[in-house]
Order: sequence, then structure tokens, then C-alpha cells
Amino acid sequence: MASYQCLTFLTDYGLEDAFVGVCHGIIAQIAPGTRIIDITHLVPPGDIRRGAAVLAQAVPYLPPAVHVAVVDPGVGTARRAVAVAAGGSVFVGPDNGLLSWAIEAAGGASGAVSLTNTALWREAVAPTFHGRDIFAPVAAHLAAGVPLARAGDEIDAASLTALPRPASRAGGGTAAGEVVTVDRFGNAQLSVTGTDAALAGLVPGSTVALAWHGGELTVRFGVTFGDVGPGEVICYTDSAGFVSVAVNGGDAARRLALHPGTRVTLTVTKLFIRWALRFREPRKAIMN
Amino acid sequence: MASYQCLTFLTDYGLEDAFVGVCHGIIAQIAPGTRIIDITHLVPPGDIRRGAAVLAQAVPYLPPAVHVAVVDPGVGTARRAVAVAAGGSVFVGPDNGLLSWAIEAAGGASGAVSLTNTALWREAVAPTFHGRDIFAPVAAHLAAGVPLARAGDEIDAASLTALPRPASRAGGGTAAGEVVTVDRFGNAQLSVTGTDAALAGLVPGSTVALAWHGGELTVRFGVTFGDVGPGEVICYTDSAGFVSVAVNGGDAARRLALHPGTRVTLTVTKLFIRWALRFREPRKAIMN
Amino acid sequence: MASYQCLTFLTDYGLEDAFVGVCHGIIAQIAPGTRIIDITHLVPPGDIRRGAAVLAQAVPYLPPAVHVAVVDPGVGTARRAVAVAAGGSVFVGPDNGLLSWAIEAAGGASGAVSLTNTALWREAVAPTFHGRDIFAPVAAHLAAGVPLARAGDEIDAASLTALPRPASRAGGGTAAGEVVTVDRFGNAQLSVTGTDAALAGLVPGSTVALAWHGGELTVRFGVTFGDVGPGEVICYTDSAGFVSVAVNGGDAARRLALHPGTRVTLTVTKLFIRWALRFREPRKAIMN
Repeated sequence: MASYQCLTFLTDYGLEDAFVGVCHGIIAQIAPGTRIIDITHLVPPGDIRRGAAVLAQAVPYLPPAVHVAVVDPGVGTARRAVAVAAGGSVFVGPDNGLLSWAIEAAGGASGAVSLTNTALWREAVAPTFHGRDIFAPVAAHLAAGVPLARAGDEIDAASLTALPRPASRAGGGTAAGEVVTVDRFGNAQLSVTGTDAALAGLVPGSTVALAWHGGELTVRFGVTFGDVGPGEVICYTDSAGFVSVAVNGGDAARRLALHPGTRVTLTVTKLFIRWALRFREPRKAIMN
Repeated sequence: MASYQCLTFLTDYGLEDAFVGVCHGIIAQIAPGTRIIDITHLVPPGDIRRGAAVLAQAVPYLPPAVHVAVVDPGVGTARRAVAVAAGGSVFVGPDNGLLSWAIEAAGGASGAVSLTNTALWREAVAPTFHGRDIFAPVAAHLAAGVPLARAGDEIDAASLTALPRPASRAGGGTAAGEVVTVDRFGNAQLSVTGTDAALAGLVPGSTVALAWHGGELTVRFGVTFGDVGPGEVICYTDSAGFVSVAVNGGDAARRLALHPGTRVTLTVTKLFIRWALRFREPRKAIMN
Repeated sequence: MASYQCLTFLTDYGLEDAFVGVCHGIIAQIAPGTRIIDITHLVPPGDIRRGAAVLAQAVPYLPPAVHVAVVDPGVGTARRAVAVAAGGSVFVGPDNGLLSWAIEAAGGASGAVSLTNTALWREAVAPTFHGRDIFAPVAAHLAAGVPLARAGDEIDAASLTALPRPASRAGGGTAAGEVVTVDRFGNAQLSVTGTDAALAGLVPGSTVALAWHGGELTVRFGVTFGDVGPGEVICYTDSAGFVSVAVNGGDAARRLALHPGTRVTLTVTKLFIRWALRFREPRKAIMN
């Protein structure tokens, strides 16, 4: 009957309403000694993939905790509400794929229940606010020491909804994938890991041809923004371990029109050879 | 001399300045053991009605607390600063109506004082930041156990400024009211309670004619968003108990141009009869 | 080996990603008993001056604390990471000027180190997220009682990067300076202190000619917004002690096109004399 010192909270509730504060209030009453860490509440409304990516990339740096995540466009319908044990933490939320990448990042599910024990819910449950009436109170009870098995009926972890992984491939001097998320600074994170890219030959110091639906550009593969001049584009492995595209002091996503889902290919170039070739067969930036 | 474990905080201060953090700092120094729950700080600047609605709908789900709310366009003028006991909590803020709906929701005022005891204020009071210099420190002292009566001169609770309730009526298959608030998802909450609507015949499963200044639409009265197809409009009773208009997976307020104050009428229809009538006397959407 | 009950946190990380939550998680694991106060995370990306102004104006109202601030466009380059003791607090952040005004406001540096003790960092340091991997963990260790001297090599406080102060002058009925920051309400704070303005003759009750690149206007120098009618412009000394320009119930920065850096001059006028002169030599508002 382990209790947790921390409960983390990620939603698409925004900050202009009382939704987040109300959940904090519910949690504080059930688990007054638990610290609540807000991961973010600005997931775009209903954007399960964005929520899944942010959660999965945050969890490795958070303490063992009850992680509650609610991006739940199907609230009040037949989709299950679940709690899943993984890597010393418990993940609580709708079974719509939101939790799946984080569970995988935590080492995979070691147990799972469907939240069917109504004794842990608020007495009245609004069909449109399970965050307040089911997820927050159940999570708070789990944080306060209620065992997972008491939250509901055991389910097969293999039955949990898994979000498909965005495609990526790397090898022979080329890495290809898609933009997964764009952060506040306009840095566009690709689905290619830095490790895979390095194995394929894309390492700091190399020069790469960056091609995407919208254009092509020869850029430096570096380590940090300051490796290129102000306003210049750079590829690098970001703090979550994924290859990303940034502009030093600028907004790469806006500048290059990169959005989640945009396909991107990186190819190591021998810049001088390329220049030489140019004289024989000039090519233009592809703008289509 | 009861103390409170929680202090809640609602303002129109926004999050880009240090206003909120500074108030947290003041409170932490006076009442270091008190948990602060931020309800929201994104009330539109000076929008007392929006602040009052958010506060009133949050309080039923929050622990007994000192609730500090500051939306105070008249800061530094003659308007009173007050603390009001209601339903096991204390409400602290300007006497401009902001607190009135929450106090009513908490069961009505059982005592009230004007914040005249300057010993509980910060030593220097800026005429434009009573949140930092009066409301936060007084609230923190109350949370730490200072009795309400010591915060200032007793006043008649009947003298507190009350915000007028938005009009609403329901009966005979029709409910009429106005949009009170719009949330992050674009769900437009009306002034009509779900209970009143149900008594008038608007219950889940019925079909209603939704008419507002701007259009008319026949929609499902359901329970949750997923009761209609993606992109379809639905009426339902929201998690605060009010009839609301939403779009499944979309933004109803933007789609239908619903704003706080927009008058809305819902009428139960017999859909098949209406269809039959259409052949005799076709009607168009009213756009006026 | 003093420990701190509070750690404050200011960044340009925004709230839509997990950056802030992840840092909270790191801090909670190292210093579980420390309260974290978020000052703001909405400093515009890379805007060191804005961050410096917000921090310096917040610190006087915050408890003694470890103040961590990260607006760090040069992350991962040669710029130093520092911790600076000042006025009973410790300031932690990049040595790019961000901390300088706050340190000055706290009474000046009494000691400083370069954060070279990697034992206090996270084991793996991402070149683009020193907030998570260096600043947050070092700050948490300091809050938990690790002495400043153990965080790294002592450096001369005089070698710390200082941000230049925005120009301001006052005397003989005139005060001139520039807009330093604009807050959520659109109030534009000038670089002139209320004290200097008062010594120059600009006191509440006087009438002043407000001139800026973009226009000229005769306005009241008052005490609070309500000293002028709704929609009218007012000058006053704000809650941080600086002369500011506001519109009662409106947004002065937008209305008058005031931005950080806009030069502004205030001159005491004798309104009646001016009116008299008008009959002889009419003048128009300067719009250039």
C-alpha cells in the first residue's frame, strides 16, 4: 500500500476556466500531503497525440508519482477509464492512447485496472467532466495509498489502446521522419532519435540537406542554437533525445512552415562536392 | 480562531507579469503552512461578471478555504475591501459584486467585515495593487487563524454589492436565457439550470430548436459531446449544472457567434411534425 | 549551511510544454520540503531585459529564497552559469545580465560562484536545457542547504554581466525616460522613478504634457486609475515605484502605441495658461 509524494497533472483544460483549480481542490481534500506538479494544461483541445508526446517526454524527469492525464474528447462515452502501473509510477486517464507512449517510456505496464470502483469517484459524476469526478479523486486515493487493485477490475495490459508511433527511419547517411511536436520557441521535434540519426551518420559537425514538404535547405547539424549565427537554421538532438529543427533566436516552425505531421528528410551532404556539382547541374530550392 | 489549510486565488492579473507570484510570496511569508490553489488568473481584465461566474462554479468543489478574488477595476477608489464568512469559508476581495454569486452558492453570508484593520496590511499600500498590499496579506492572516472580526469593522451583509443575476425563464417546453460564460473549448454556458430546463421538458433525448440572435438550429439535447457526430451541435447540462451549447470536437461559441450576453431560446420540437410542415411552408434559418 | 523554505522560478519556457513541470519535478526530488513559487514563465522568448525587469520588481516582495531565473538564448555556449548571494537570497541563472537588476535591488552581490561543480548537476546535461540539468538541480541543492561555495569556483562579483539601465532624467518640471515594460493591462512602465518625478515637480494632482514618439497628450498625473474618467489616459506612480501610463479601464500601450524602448517625456503644464495661449497660437496634437 505505497503512497506517493507527488501527483502530476496534464490536461487540455486551459488556464482561463476553473477546471484545473477545481481538480487541485478535489485532490487536496483526498490527499492533503501530496504535492501536485502541473505538467501542462495547454494541450490543444482534444489533441491526444500532443498530450501523449508531452507526457512521455516529461515522465523520465519526474519523481515516481501518480500521473493523471486528461485529454478526453470521448468523455462520457464508452471509452474506458484506466489506471496503469509502470516503472514505479501509476498512470491514470482515459484509455484513448494518451497514456501509451509514457507507459512505454516508463518500461511498460506491469498491471492495469479499469476504474470501475465507484466508491473512489465523487458521488455525482458529470458526463462531461470525468477529470473532476473520476480521474482526480481516484488518482488522489491512489496517491494516498489505496492499492491499484482497489480502483477497479483488472484488465489485460495488452488491451490498452496504444497510439501508433510516428514513422521514422535512418540509415546510410539519411534520416526521415515527421514533425511530432513544436515547442514554445518554435523548435520542431522530429520522430527520429538522435541515437538513430548518429548511427546513420548525422552527427554534430556534419552538414545536412533538410528537405520537407515546402522546401529544402542545407543546414548545420550542431549541438546547440549558438552553433549557428543568429537567424540561421540548425538541426540538433534536443533535450528529449530527438532530432529537432531550430532557428537560433527565431521560430523555425513558423519560418519553415513545419507542423506536427510534416514529413522531413535529413541527408548528410559533402558540401564542397555539392557545390561542384552545382556548376554542372544547377538545382533550385524546391517550393511546392 | 480556526485556521485554513487552503487559500484559493482568482484574479485578472494574467500570467505574464509577476503579480500572481508576488502575492504567493506575500502569503507564503504570513501563512507558510497554507496550500495555495490558483483557480484562474486569466479573467479578462476588469470583467467582474466572468470572475464572479468562475468563482461561484468552482467553490462547491474546493475545500473550506479563504477564497481571495481580485478583479478590481476600481482599485484605490472608494469601493470597500471586504471579507465575508459563508458556508465554512471566508471570501476576501473588493466589494464590487465579484464575490456575490460565490457567497450565495456557499449558502449566503453569515458575517462580513470591511477590511479596515491596517495592521493586517502591508506597511506601504500602493493605490493600484491592493491584491499584494491588502487582499493577500489579510487573507493569509485569516488563513493562519486571525479571526474575521479582527480584519476590520463589522458591516451588514445586506449592504454588500450584489451582481444582478442574468435573466432566465423556463416552462412549457421552452427555456430562455443568456450566455453567461464561454470556456476554453468554446462551450457556451447559459443562465438556465439543467433542473429548470428538465422541469420545462428539455431532457436528454429530446430535440430542441436553438434560437439566438444570429441564427436558429435544430439540435439534440444530450448528455455528453459524443452523443452527436463530430462537428455537430449539442445542448446538454454541463458539469456546473447549467444548460450549455457545444460542438462535438469543435468550438460552439466561435461557430455560432455566441458571446456572454447573447440571448438564447431553446424549444422542444416534434421533429417529424416539423419536417411535415416544411413541405407546406418552407422556412429558412433566421439570420438577423 | 542555511536552507531556504522557498525557491522562486522565472523563465521564458512558456506553459504549453513540459519544461516548467519537469524542472518542478527535478527540484521536488532534491528539495522535497521547499515551496516553489512561479514568478512567471511567459517572458517573451529570449527577452533578457523583460525577464530582468520582472525579476527585479518581484524580489522585494518575495521571501528570502533561491531565485532561479532562466532566459538563456546562449544556452550551451561559453556564457557562464552562476549563483550569486545578495540580500539574504541566492540568485541562480545564466550570466547574461538577467539577474543583474534583481541583485542590485537586493543590495548588491555579497558573493558569487561559477556553477562548475558538476556533482550538483544532473548526470547527463543536454546542451539546450540547462534549466533542467544545471540550474534547477543546483538551485534545489542550495535550497536544501548546500553552501554556495560548494556550487563552484568563486568569481569576482564585479565580473558579472550587468544589463545597462534604461536612461532616465528628471528635473525642472520635466521627466524623460523610456518604456521598460508593459503589463497585462497595457500599463506602460517608464524608467523614471516616482521619487525622481516628484522631486522634479510631477506630483499627483498636477497636469502634464505626455510626449512620445507617436504623439502628445495633456493628461492628469494621479494616484490610481479611477482618478480619471473611463477611457481617459493617466500618469501615476505604479506599485513598483515607477512612473507609468495607463488608461482607466483600457489598454494604454495599445492605444498610444507604447512599446519597450519608446522614449517618453513628461512636462508639468499650467493648464489654464496653456489654454489662454491656445487662443493666440493654436497647436495640434503632434502625430509623427
